Amino acid sequence: AGSGARRMESYGRFLALLVSALLVGFLSVVFSLVWVFHYREGLSWDGGPGEFNWHPVLIITGFVFIQGIAIIVYRLPWTWKCSKLLMKFIHAGLNTIAMILAIVSMVAVFDFHNARNIPNMYSLHSWIGLTAVIFYALQLFLGVAVFLLPFAPVPLRAALMPIHVYSGLTIFATVIATALMGVTEKLIFSLKNPAYSAFPPEGTFVNCLGILLVIFGALILWMASRSQWKRPPEMNAKVLQHLGATPEGTEAESTMADSTNADQSDLRINSEAARKQNLKFDETGQRSTM
Amino acid sequence: AGSGARRMESYGRFLALLVSALLVGFLSVVFSLVWVFHYREGLSWDGGPGEFNWHPVLIITGFVFIQGIAIIVYRLPWTWKCSKLLMKFIHAGLNTIAMILAIVSMVAVFDFHNARNIPNMYSLHSWIGLTAVIFYALQLFLGVAVFLLPFAPVPLRAALMPIHVYSGLTIFATVIATALMGVTEKLIFSLKNPAYSAFPPEGTFVNCLGILLVIFGALILWMASRSQWKRPPEMNAKVLQHLGATPEGTEAESTMADSTNADQSDLRINSEAARKQNLKFDETGQRSTM
Repeated sequence: AGSGARRMESYGRFLALLVSALLVGFLSVVFSLVWVFHYREGLSWDGGPGEFNWHPVLIITGFVFIQGIAIIVYRLPWTWKCSKLLMKFIHAGLNTIAMILAIVSMVAVFDFHNARNIPNMYSLHSWIGLTAVIFYALQLFLGVAVFLLPFAPVPLRAALMPIHVYSGLTIFATVIATALMGVTEKLIFSLKNPAYSAFPPEGTFVNCLGILLVIFGALILWMASRSQWKRPPEMNAKVLQHLGATPEGTEAESTMADSTNADQSDLRINSEAARKQNLKFDETGQRSTM
Repeated sequence: AGSGARRMESYGRFLALLVSALLVGFLSVVFSLVWVFHYREGLSWDGGPGEFNWHPVLIITGFVFIQGIAIIVYRLPWTWKCSKLLMKFIHAGLNTIAMILAIVSMVAVFDFHNARNIPNMYSLHSWIGLTAVIFYALQLFLGVAVFLLPFAPVPLRAALMPIHVYSGLTIFATVIATALMGVTEKLIFSLKNPAYSAFPPEGTFVNCLGILLVIFGALILWMASRSQWKRPPEMNAKVLQHLGATPEGTEAESTMADSTNADQSDLRINSEAARKQNLKFDETGQRSTM
């Protein structure tokens, strides 16, 4: 009974954080739309400011919000009964959508710059942003090749998973940092009379958008780095016992997570159905990732 | 022999990353000095631009470089024979130095703004930066109160450690993001003829400084989140065996670290001396943090 209560409490905390993250992420998207429609020139695709405005809207929608959801999609407890393969498709699919939106948003800026003879790629924002997109594309390509397609051997998957997790979270944090630089640039360039320094409503409003992005990032990083909310490993407990290993000690698919939470085993109970369902297991003692 | 070779390899990788981080961090400080002395007005304390220039120099030296070193100081294998208490003093001491430098660097900006009638606290950079300093102060205060002073009970320490680690890394990442915003602001404001967009040498040089800051942050986060490089727990293995626990499963002092590295036990062998030395152990099965 005590264990069940603790499980419900952990589940409740997860839900509260999830709802907060969804709310803050959704609010960020709404703020970006209010910014471009109420304070700026709206959206268009004609080489004018309305084309530039796609840039913040699509970055915040795709590269921040959707990427953030893609990161924590394995953590949703009601998906633990779904096959790991399905969840991988959803993870890769959301990241692909984020990638496409990020690319379209870059095209919008380049188009806008070229139409107005503004140089491209001179700012730190553009340098780090382009680097982030390139690393994101690389991460997506390698992720699909190693973890989604059935060719990579399990030891390779196990060896690359910590790097995949670390890269994913680092790229995500870098994207948010780049968005904050972009917000800063845009406010300085576009607020002239009154200037940004005169506290015009647009400046204050968009500063709040920046704060929302930081809170969203912090929530996603917290959820992604708690081991008690991890998707339970799909492995055969009896085989493990036979090998003398513990489930915790043989998981290959997580790294930025603590190894010490007492609630860990509790939430796992939810997934007994999932465990019965699948259960590939290889001789290295590491869990299959398909 | 195979285990020893693996241990040496892991140690070698750690050293390579440490040297890289020190090099990139040191280079960031040098770049900030070249920026203010070669491209800008140097350093002074007279309300002029030379006073403002303390801001980037002290932030990069203290709030980025020294904070980064403070984060990984427990990971240095040659400190594992030192008492945990000594290492906590070094960790808290470095963070205190970073804190003081961050505060002085803020005073420099406020002084400069006030002398020139430039408004304070209008930009997203200032909002997030001040928030980061406040959270950093809170983190330092709570860290000392809970983990350094001998009053907090072990279960409280164990419960707060994951939050301490997460907050520390999140604040560190936020500080770097804020520095990137600050660099962006300063380049836009000070590069006028030629403008930032005309690719003047100063713009390119300081963009490189921004890239260095991102690389430094990424290196520190990688080193801080690998469990195989963690300071070994100071606990009595025999007591643990008696309780049926494994050393990995009972550590209370780490969170953003993977629970799966095979090298984990290897590096620990280095610390047998440390283990023999100390070894407090409480009935909750959690490691003492003093």
